[in-house]
Amino acid sequence: MTEQRIYLDHIAGTPILPEVLQAMLPFLQVHFGNPASIHHHGELPQDALFRSREQVARLIGADNEEIIFTSCGTESNNLAIKGAAFHEFHNGKHLLISAVEHYSVLYAAKSLEKFGYEVTLVPVDGLGRVDPDDVRRAIRPDTVLVSIMLANNEVGTIQPLAAIADYTRTKGILLHTDAIAATGRIPVNVKELGVDLLSLSANQFSGPKGAAALYCRKGVNIWPLFHGGGQEDGRRTGTENVAGIVGLGKAAELTLAALPRRMEICRHLEKRLRQRIAEQVDEIRFNGDPDNHLPGLVNVSISYVEGEALLLHMDMRGISVAGASACMSITAKASHVLEAMGALGDGAIGTLLFTLGEDNTEAQVDHSVDTLAQVVTMLRAMSPLYKQLG
Amino acid sequence: MTEQRIYLDHIAGTPILPEVLQAMLPFLQVHFGNPASIHHHGELPQDALFRSREQVARLIGADNEEIIFTSCGTESNNLAIKGAAFHEFHNGKHLLISAVEHYSVLYAAKSLEKFGYEVTLVPVDGLGRVDPDDVRRAIRPDTVLVSIMLANNEVGTIQPLAAIADYTRTKGILLHTDAIAATGRIPVNVKELGVDLLSLSANQFSGPKGAAALYCRKGVNIWPLFHGGGQEDGRRTGTENVAGIVGLGKAAELTLAALPRRMEICRHLEKRLRQRIAEQVDEIRFNGDPDNHLPGLVNVSISYVEGEALLLHMDMRGISVAGASACMSITAKASHVLEAMGALGDGAIGTLLFTLGEDNTEAQVDHSVDTLAQVVTMLRAMSPLYKQLG
Repeated sequence: MTEQRIYLDHIAGTPILPEVLQAMLPFLQVHFGNPASIHHHGELPQDALFRSREQVARLIGADNEEIIFTSCGTESNNLAIKGAAFHEFHNGKHLLISAVEHYSVLYAAKSLEKFGYEVTLVPVDGLGRVDPDDVRRAIRPDTVLVSIMLANNEVGTIQPLAAIADYTRTKGILLHTDAIAATGRIPVNVKELGVDLLSLSANQFSGPKGAAALYCRKGVNIWPLFHGGGQEDGRRTGTENVAGIVGLGKAAELTLAALPRRMEICRHLEKRLRQRIAEQVDEIRFNGDPDNHLPGLVNVSISYVEGEALLLHMDMRGISVAGASACMSITAKASHVLEAMGALGDGAIGTLLFTLGEDNTEAQVDHSVDTLAQVVTMLRAMSPLYKQLG
Repeated sequence: MTEQRIYLDHIAGTPILPEVLQAMLPFLQVHFGNPASIHHHGELPQDALFRSREQVARLIGADNEEIIFTSCGTESNNLAIKGAAFHEFHNGKHLLISAVEHYSVLYAAKSLEKFGYEVTLVPVDGLGRVDPDDVRRAIRPDTVLVSIMLANNEVGTIQPLAAIADYTRTKGILLHTDAIAATGRIPVNVKELGVDLLSLSANQFSGPKGAAALYCRKGVNIWPLFHGGGQEDGRRTGTENVAGIVGLGKAAELTLAALPRRMEICRHLEKRLRQRIAEQVDEIRFNGDPDNHLPGLVNVSISYVEGEALLLHMDMRGISVAGASACMSITAKASHVLEAMGALGDGAIGTLLFTLGEDNTEAQVDHSVDTLAQVVTMLRAMSPLYKQLG
């Protein structure tokens, strides 16, 4: 069944590339040893971790020892936010994040209020953009961390990180960026961005679930969420998910080589998707920054239909697509991102999030839009409000 | 090379059973979807999580919703310790742990001193046993958590958890047990133990690395280490390592069925190992409780040799065995467990930790002891202290 369906929800997780799985398998079948063991069985796993660290570091222009392996993007974000904040527990308790951060940044920051921290949300404009001047103005003497995502996971808007970093660096305030949606979709270089901490996750770029990383610039100290035996230089202790990390490394290596072509394919398919939607469905609005967003991401609000009904009917017709937030589908809450952008709208309006991958085709895009147009027509035919307008 | 070697270090991680890998593979190859997605691609992953939760719950006599999936044993222990402590941040700041806890409990507890918490270490006797009366006496009005491991990962001693639980329950104090070394080696039942929190890890019972769990009794509240989208009922948010969790579940199911036979094999091989060592090597001492320890675990201190030299020479001869602590091999520190037991000894004394699995054979045991005897003889021939005695 799955193979005949159309998957347009890559931001919820990408298929694992066969080369990635091939790289992982030996560590599930034969080389099961613990990298911490100083005997033979520990050697290959240890070598594999070294190689993966190098592959991930190279993808983002970091040094090997600046890569901390984690179990998911949410862990990376929590380690960055709580780790930086708790390290400065006795020095300052103010955090600055944008209003459109992923919940794993937003709620990680909010969770610290219990311990006396204050969290300021920097607003965004109607395209989802943070103004670096707003960040500058919101910084206080007790600010210990600024966290602004590199690209938004719902509307794709890319933030002016380098401009923000220019300021935080002169003030000596740590800057974290959630680059989970960005890494694998646009070039990400920690030195060009000027960030101190950066989160990425393998399952956004053809790697497995269960493997992610936090870049932690040399000299930056964080309070570890996991204490123990001392793996990852004491910053994230625990027996490593060797196979997963090997998959992350291989996916990073492949991504570095494939990114230009991947971006080209995604941009091409995205353009086609936007054009066809605009041609075939009226009363719509595309959300996000049209000039500066993640290739392959299309967030569209469609008037006079309900989001859940849209999703359900698309799914019934063999098309997997997300609601406002891919990750948050399960909670079915209204998007805090669109709300911060002033783009929630009033009345019945459904939002769909398409995220394309290099494995998608023009035919899939065309069929999906045809299906969407049919579904919208059908749903609007049942909508009293739409009929009233017609 | 690996297949001809002898692996006697199962506490550092067990080989993954073929059935476990078979169960995992579809989720790496085809069913890559995000369990949080409400479309087709999320369905099978979501079902798989449900089944795994049931399998893990059944292994330890818990209810499904009491199982929180984590990424490793260290995470489970940190989530229990920090989660319980931070939840009570404004109510009490005293923690009670034993002196022989794994570093992931010991240092998780110690890390909280920065936030004003106090940690009391309950001593053990020469066999590594905690006295429940010592726990009772060390409890204070501000004690928020007691954490005593079920079985020690270095000497195998099994602790009187149920007797401790009898007391903590009447006092309304949370009791956590690190059952990572125990689960898969002895029967573990949360209701019989009477604990509130219990850690276990798949890679101790033929499952993959990167998948573990924390049992959290209904009604027990912890502060999540990861905040975000709301997975795991908000207690451990983040996209799930579906394949790893499926492996954990399958390993739990197989373990439940295989445990009696696994214990029988390990006890038989262990007895043979102990007898042969005692016959072939003089000036030795077995550490741990001879009457109540993990089947298959043999911790032996050998006088007039150095631990590292022992390990190295065993490894060169094709035998993978651990030093005092399997997990801590990489740091080469003296064992805090033997120290707490008053069993470090003075002068040159090397300690080896053998942990057998059901995949070991009598021939492997015999060959390993023959090799050990040769290595010890060779090393002692170079030891001035031993010659002096001779």
